[in-house]
Amino acid sequence: MNKHIVLLPGDGIGKEVTKAARLVLEAVAERNGHNFTFEEQLIGGAAIDEAGTPLPEKTVAAARKADAVLLGAVGGPKWDHLPGAERPEKGLLGIRKQLGLFANLRPVKGFKQLLHASPLKQEVVENSDLLIVRELTGGLYFGRPQERTEDGSGVVDTLQYTRKEIERIVEKGFESASKRRNHLTSVDKANVLESSRMWREVVEEKKEKYPDVEVDHMLVDAAAMKLVTNPSSFDVIVTENMFGDILSDEASVLTGSLGLLPSASLREDGTGLFEPVHGSAPDIAGEDKANPLAMILSTAMMLKHSFGMEKEADHIEKAVQEVLDAGYHTADLSIMNGIEHGCNDMTRKVIEQITSED
Amino acid sequence: MNKHIVLLPGDGIGKEVTKAARLVLEAVAERNGHNFTFEEQLIGGAAIDEAGTPLPEKTVAAARKADAVLLGAVGGPKWDHLPGAERPEKGLLGIRKQLGLFANLRPVKGFKQLLHASPLKQEVVENSDLLIVRELTGGLYFGRPQERTEDGSGVVDTLQYTRKEIERIVEKGFESASKRRNHLTSVDKANVLESSRMWREVVEEKKEKYPDVEVDHMLVDAAAMKLVTNPSSFDVIVTENMFGDILSDEASVLTGSLGLLPSASLREDGTGLFEPVHGSAPDIAGEDKANPLAMILSTAMMLKHSFGMEKEADHIEKAVQEVLDAGYHTADLSIMNGIEHGCNDMTRKVIEQITSED
Ligand SMILES: CC(C)[C@H](C(=O)O)[C@@H](O)C(=O)O
Ligand SMILES: CC(C)[C@H](C(=O)O)[C@@H](O)C(=O)O
Repeated sequence: MNKHIVLLPGDGIGKEVTKAARLVLEAVAERNGHNFTFEEQLIGGAAIDEAGTPLPEKTVAAARKADAVLLGAVGGPKWDHLPGAERPEKGLLGIRKQLGLFANLRPVKGFKQLLHASPLKQEVVENSDLLIVRELTGGLYFGRPQERTEDGSGVVDTLQYTRKEIERIVEKGFESASKRRNHLTSVDKANVLESSRMWREVVEEKKEKYPDVEVDHMLVDAAAMKLVTNPSSFDVIVTENMFGDILSDEASVLTGSLGLLPSASLREDGTGLFEPVHGSAPDIAGEDKANPLAMILSTAMMLKHSFGMEKEADHIEKAVQEVLDAGYHTADLSIMNGIEHGCNDMTRKVIEQITSED
Repeated sequence: MNKHIVLLPGDGIGKEVTKAARLVLEAVAERNGHNFTFEEQLIGGAAIDEAGTPLPEKTVAAARKADAVLLGAVGGPKWDHLPGAERPEKGLLGIRKQLGLFANLRPVKGFKQLLHASPLKQEVVENSDLLIVRELTGGLYFGRPQERTEDGSGVVDTLQYTRKEIERIVEKGFESASKRRNHLTSVDKANVLESSRMWREVVEEKKEKYPDVEVDHMLVDAAAMKLVTNPSSFDVIVTENMFGDILSDEASVLTGSLGLLPSASLREDGTGLFEPVHGSAPDIAGEDKANPLAMILSTAMMLKHSFGMEKEADHIEKAVQEVLDAGYHTADLSIMNGIEHGCNDMTRKVIEQITSED
């Protein structure tokens, strides 16, 4: 297959891990007879520096035409003094909205070798394997009005959803659950919010279509507790934008594998933007110390979700698992009796695995 | 001193723990020459059953005249079928708003004997001792509009604050920090919300008045992570209503002492409503199995915050600590080689300690 991929390296270690992703994808293409073409564009701080805005039109136009987008990371202290609307994160929020990337998928899974780095007790966290499906283009993030009163005495933000927006993300939650362990937890605050009450209704309606999926409703405060006390009780969580932001970050630290977590942000037609959950880590940028695995696992999500290449995605995931099993790790991880590698060498190890798997 | 206290036992174990609180307060009064008078009123499911509404006018009127209010717990499966506006929780939301209880204080502290029940590793959680100061009468909980569009195609909730509301809760955060370890973490989502940007400005302004307090700003998603990875890095957290709801519940499970956590909801004049963090536990209601300690510790918060009785509050806290040190516990807690007691006997143990302390 021919696929065109837009690369948005962004800032800090974003550049290094994006290079790693490209090398891995070239190896996958070669092995499987695909033809992947790549195009680099600017976003975040890099875009502010070179083009005066965190999200140049050219970037959006290129992303619109691509089969998928890979993003490294945005932000860093260099741009921290800028006012809100001009900061690197605005590039991220902007591209989500402009491309209609409404469904954010964040899998959290423990790697056996890294569980010892979890803040949780081994017996609490082992066997955790959950997926957060977060609505990404609505709610408090984009609702209007979002403004101060004229005299400055008050302020308002708006949590806004159309029923259609709720329906499509809830569907995504059910679909995801039906491909996994058939358990969906819908998280809301229906005892307080009208939007949550509509959310609950939509979940109740949609569940008729998925008779095999068991559905729970859980309040967001209860979910924040249960993620800590019993993370392995979850399969798929579906929730609105802000709740998803909070819960997915909370979930990301449970297994001690933050440096390995990928994410997907999908459009209705299946194309999407894929990025590691970790940030731009400006303190180690350019030193060949970055951990490329979260970005490499993000390319696996891209192959699966946007290109329908399940087998190729599995190859990548298996390769990462095998590299960890062999004890290789970057400086951010620690594996007992393991061998520390830089970003380049780790990437090479993964590629060797991919090339040699059968 | 003469003090009049309104008791709102509410539902489930709320009744038992409220009785325990009264006995403890009578012992404190006797020992210290105070005169506490008590008056019981209805709230929650009990009020629905007897008066047809979760918050009768009579309850509000009595609470307004009281020096402080003690609340047991509200809710239970019996009322779960009722539509949102008629449910027991509405009593709680209503009394907060009508009494102007804008500041919710939720201390989270580990008890050495119970740390083993924490989902976190001992070395992560030990020494945790934090206080969440949550805004309780504004934000998404009470902002208007909160409604569907006429044709049902959309829905809106409103996150609304006046600058004054932000100022008074931020002040409460600074005051609390200055009485503790002088470290305030203000939690917001300033990279997305206009209300958070105003919040940050107010914190920056107010900090001039508290030169000894060190202030951090932290995004809510980062705070949700850090509570799990490094809870002992926090002293006081101040945040808006919904973020506070989520983070305080997340924090409540960290130390394995959920059954022991008290809370205070304060008005500007210092009076307030005090209640345990745990719920109504309908499954064990009426069986003398409830743990009265969270409620007893809530009375200590009442003595300190509403009556200025620091010494008496310390007596209660010390008594609870000593009862635990001696190995006494209720069925919800487990202490190695401890002695299990019911609600009545635990209460008696605490009272014995209070009476015998010097
Ligand atoms: C950078 C920020 C605006 C963003 C968000 O809140 O969505 C980030 O936290 C995320 O989760 O991708
Ligand atoms: C019962 C509910 C409305 C309430 C809240 O969200 O404030 C509860 O979760 C709490 O934290 O006291």
